Amino acid sequence: MALSDAKAGKRNEEGIFAVVGILKQRFGERFQTGESFRAQHAHTTTYIPAQLPDGVLFAETADDVKVAVKVCAEQKVPVIGFGTGSSLEGQVNAPNGGVSIDFSRMNRVLEVNAEDLDCTVEPGITREELNVYLRDTGLFFPIDPGANASIGGMASTRASGTNAVRYGTMKDNVLSVTAVTANGNEIRTARRARKSSAGYDLTRLFVGAEGTLGILTSVTLRLQGIPQKIAGGACSFPTVKAACDAVIMTIQMGIPVARIELLDDVQMRACNAYSGLIYAESPTLFLEFHGSDETVELQSAQFAEIAAECGGGEFLWTANAEERNKLWKARHDAYWACRALAPGLAALSTDVCVPISRLADCVAETQADIQEHGLLAPIVGHAGDGNFHVLLLFDDKTAQGVAVAENFVVRLNQRALAMDGTCTGEHGIGQGKMAFLEQELGGAVDLMRQVKQALDPDNIFNPGKIFHLV
Amino acid sequence: MALSDAKAGKRNEEGIFAVVGILKQRFGERFQTGESFRAQHAHTTTYIPAQLPDGVLFAETADDVKVAVKVCAEQKVPVIGFGTGSSLEGQVNAPNGGVSIDFSRMNRVLEVNAEDLDCTVEPGITREELNVYLRDTGLFFPIDPGANASIGGMASTRASGTNAVRYGTMKDNVLSVTAVTANGNEIRTARRARKSSAGYDLTRLFVGAEGTLGILTSVTLRLQGIPQKIAGGACSFPTVKAACDAVIMTIQMGIPVARIELLDDVQMRACNAYSGLIYAESPTLFLEFHGSDETVELQSAQFAEIAAECGGGEFLWTANAEERNKLWKARHDAYWACRALAPGLAALSTDVCVPISRLADCVAETQADIQEHGLLAPIVGHAGDGNFHVLLLFDDKTAQGVAVAENFVVRLNQRALAMDGTCTGEHGIGQGKMAFLEQELGGAVDLMRQVKQALDPDNIFNPGKIFHLV
Repeated sequence: MALSDAKAGKRNEEGIFAVVGILKQRFGERFQTGESFRAQHAHTTTYIPAQLPDGVLFAETADDVKVAVKVCAEQKVPVIGFGTGSSLEGQVNAPNGGVSIDFSRMNRVLEVNAEDLDCTVEPGITREELNVYLRDTGLFFPIDPGANASIGGMASTRASGTNAVRYGTMKDNVLSVTAVTANGNEIRTARRARKSSAGYDLTRLFVGAEGTLGILTSVTLRLQGIPQKIAGGACSFPTVKAACDAVIMTIQMGIPVARIELLDDVQMRACNAYSGLIYAESPTLFLEFHGSDETVELQSAQFAEIAAECGGGEFLWTANAEERNKLWKARHDAYWACRALAPGLAALSTDVCVPISRLADCVAETQADIQEHGLLAPIVGHAGDGNFHVLLLFDDKTAQGVAVAENFVVRLNQRALAMDGTCTGEHGIGQGKMAFLEQELGGAVDLMRQVKQALDPDNIFNPGKIFHLV
Repeated sequence: MALSDAKAGKRNEEGIFAVVGILKQRFGERFQTGESFRAQHAHTTTYIPAQLPDGVLFAETADDVKVAVKVCAEQKVPVIGFGTGSSLEGQVNAPNGGVSIDFSRMNRVLEVNAEDLDCTVEPGITREELNVYLRDTGLFFPIDPGANASIGGMASTRASGTNAVRYGTMKDNVLSVTAVTANGNEIRTARRARKSSAGYDLTRLFVGAEGTLGILTSVTLRLQGIPQKIAGGACSFPTVKAACDAVIMTIQMGIPVARIELLDDVQMRACNAYSGLIYAESPTLFLEFHGSDETVELQSAQFAEIAAECGGGEFLWTANAEERNKLWKARHDAYWACRALAPGLAALSTDVCVPISRLADCVAETQADIQEHGLLAPIVGHAGDGNFHVLLLFDDKTAQGVAVAENFVVRLNQRALAMDGTCTGEHGIGQGKMAFLEQELGGAVDLMRQVKQALDPDNIFNPGKIFHLV
């Protein structure tokens, strides 16, 4: 098939036929082509329609990945990595068909170096599995995007989540990766030292590349000591602006808050109803502090002062694990709480991120937009990063309902870009945000294309994601 | 000129002649070709011989940079960015000749966003100039590689230094850059949001690229609040191992130490003599804590306990600025203190970085090597990162003296690589460490070459650095 056809998203029928035959013979039951398997591996939590791969390989070793990539590369057939399928912008779809590599059986911990606070894992392990494994070492992996995603998927979408404000994002917590590149060889992007100035930062190039430059076969992660003490609580504010002012002061004073989450009034109403809470249905910050007995008490007291200064209500905090877990379970269930607001409607989860000084404006303008258009769309944000999510409940059964949702997303992204923000803080571009990426970075996207074409000249790795090549 | 000639490091005499003529006419006095100017811009603090550019442009605006790059690109002539010339691995040398762009006049602060804790600067501003500018805002830029380097140079070598253990390296503190690419256009790698999942991480691709992918025209940096209180002190240990054990425990317990520097016995002897100190001449940790009155006291007390447990002497700390400055001035003067040990000899400053658990072994084996070969080479390290420097004093007047130095560097790097470390934690590859990069990352270096060839097909940006293309 001509490269221009592959770029244009056409299916390479001959190549796919050959690859399916070879992989069936090579892997037997571990390579599945039944529709239910293929459908499971294209499922996506957006309104973007599913596009099924032609077969699913359940990889068990890095050598399996090398074989699959070599076979696909020879035939110029797409290869798409699959962790748990929790990505939100169509990242695992197969618009040109091809092979999905499922990593659920590559979920081993390969090495833990407790003294160095690092570990190396296979890409299919989920963050919860990893933390269960680590519990006895006194260490934990902090990044928590909400979903129990796989580490490989989290690395590939540059995920972050509730405690990025303290621990950073995947970009800050991946020390190195191994990846199978277009020639079927495995490379390692860095050694295990905590920092390096040795050449281009290939680790950060693979983190966030959404599987378009190669297939990860292992990830080396930074770990953290489990805090001696964890305290948390919630505090309500009269306005989003007041809550955001409290966030800015907290960050400026250097209080090392571990989580600082903003839930708007609609989200609070949903959480109260769904999780049986009795919080005020006004903008609320959920907080968590990690440290020693002394430091979490100190930090909580400092925050309480800030909250009072910004017109917030009383800050009630607790180090009691049960009460704290109830609070955070409500936060983690925010998605389901929203869905319960309108069970008949579909849900579209989208995210943008702006400089913190613009967060209050961006949220307030978005709320006004929601109201003006008669939409139902709770807002929840990782306020310490200026990142927020809107869960738009919409009718996906009608073209008009879909258009309403699409137009809302366009306005939301243009608002964030106008504030020097980004069209995605943590969900990635996938298929859903390509147009916004062009608006956001302009000519820089051409550099991305040049990198892609250099490392994957036949466009076999997750084609049709992040940007169009033609 | 054929590309293969440029790759092989040949001078493009015709192109250079044309470029010099055009730039002279265009920029007048701002483009200098006198030997003293050219020699200043090739000076390097290593034993690598100087290789002069053919002319030096004192750029004043991003447009100047665009013009220079366009002219050089048309003629396929090298362009090399120059900050302060404090790089240590020959990064500013011009092996194929070409044009050096001096950024000393592009040293403005373009924007400070105090609420967002960020600022945007031109690449030529030094870190000390920036911190003087920021003083009234209550913010500071923490990265401190020792030398008063330019921000553009620090970004390009992925610099770090004494307080990376707390604040990270340039990779963690650059939010975005603007750069002129091979087609003479300026791109911006990211918006001002604190995090983003929007496409490939071009910011991190330019940070550490040593000017080989384009020329930076501005850098947006994360800033920190100036700590309310700074405390510091020193603590001596019977052995390097005991000191490193204390470092590991400090990091594992999550004590947010701002600096934790290891000086070996030879370095302590040099510092005592040079700075008039009276410390024990045994392995010593210099520490600094940033926080509030309460937290620096708490952290200092916690460290004192750890030090005692590891067999260290008494940890004397102070929040008195004058005493603290005396201590850190001695640390910053370590280079000159070493030079004073043997005024007749040349000095070679080199760095490696290993996982912290291997730091004690790596330092001890290096000390044994130094002793075995009768060398004089104090060691000072950013112990919290596993990064250390050796300042080898050697005779650069004889081939034998140079060979002794080169062989020592080979052994040092092989030792670090054998411990899964990197050949450079913060100095970069430049011309000096190319062979070690190949040993360190093998096939991954081919990916770097592919990226380089995609973004700079005529190899005009700082050729002959990081890796050989042919």
